[in-house]
Amino acid sequence: MSGEGQPAALRSRSQRVADTLERLRRDVDLWVASASEDGEAYLVPLSYHWDGSTLTISTPSASPTARNLLRAGRARVALGQTRDVVIVEGTVEAFPIGADPELEEAHARSAGFDPRTLRDEYVYLRITPQEIQAWRESNELDGRLLMRDGAWLGEQ
Amino acid sequence: MSGEGQPAALRSRSQRVADTLERLRRDVDLWVASASEDGEAYLVPLSYHWDGSTLTISTPSASPTARNLLRAGRARVALGQTRDVVIVEGTVEAFPIGADPELEEAHARSAGFDPRTLRDEYVYLRITPQEIQAWRESNELDGRLLMRDGAWLGEQ
Repeated sequence: MSGEGQPAALRSRSQRVADTLERLRRDVDLWVASASEDGEAYLVPLSYHWDGSTLTISTPSASPTARNLLRAGRARVALGQTRDVVIVEGTVEAFPIGADPELEEAHARSAGFDPRTLRDEYVYLRITPQEIQAWRESNELDGRLLMRDGAWLGEQ
Repeated sequence: MSGEGQPAALRSRSQRVADTLERLRRDVDLWVASASEDGEAYLVPLSYHWDGSTLTISTPSASPTARNLLRAGRARVALGQTRDVVIVEGTVEAFPIGADPELEEAHARSAGFDPRTLRDEYVYLRITPQEIQAWRESNELDGRLLMRDGAWLGEQ
């Protein structure tokens, strides 16, 4: 993970939390890793909505991501660049189209597409973060844990 | 995956292949998804070396990524941004430090770190692509398959 030249300056935990919240608010897409029951990994980019405490994504009900996340009940997703990483692990709950119109409307605005208007059958997946890590270069690997068991950690 | 405004212009397959090879040559990091035997997904960014036909990464032998990829014998990795995606699926072979000094030297130059100098025990993992997909916006989802069974596809 070390790059050439000088790494970026080391951030305090409170700065990392602020940067992470800003990224969750502003970004549009994240990477979703998932695994089948027999241990086959899958990885796709998806658009999301952040409501201040949970991430909502939507994907065809028949997709490997939907199947895998519903089975596992957990997701590991990444936001940002490989040198400005936010990794979120959380629990996954599914809800069908029509179950939460307000959140569905917010999702459509954030994600830039509206699964309610599409021909394929989509499902919403709501991820509640349990663990969040953030780091830029290898000098930030220490102290990368920002949330544990669903609670933001205080200043170091 | 649809963004606001106009999507980028649709690329021909030969343009996507050229852009993909350029990205493989120039980028430093990729996202590695892996899964444990009992279906738990993992996701980390790692630096890599591209030698023109295979990707070489290195990670601690005891890490979840090394364990998972060695078990599965396959990897799914992503390069680029969520709106300029390259997804590579391939077979994984491991080799220990010292087994291929020329490739290890090339890896150190490309990746910006040298596992031969580190205290933890690292392993090299060489990924031979079997399938490669590349797309930017949703208008490029059709035709995203560029390599199948290890062979680049011809013009559409």
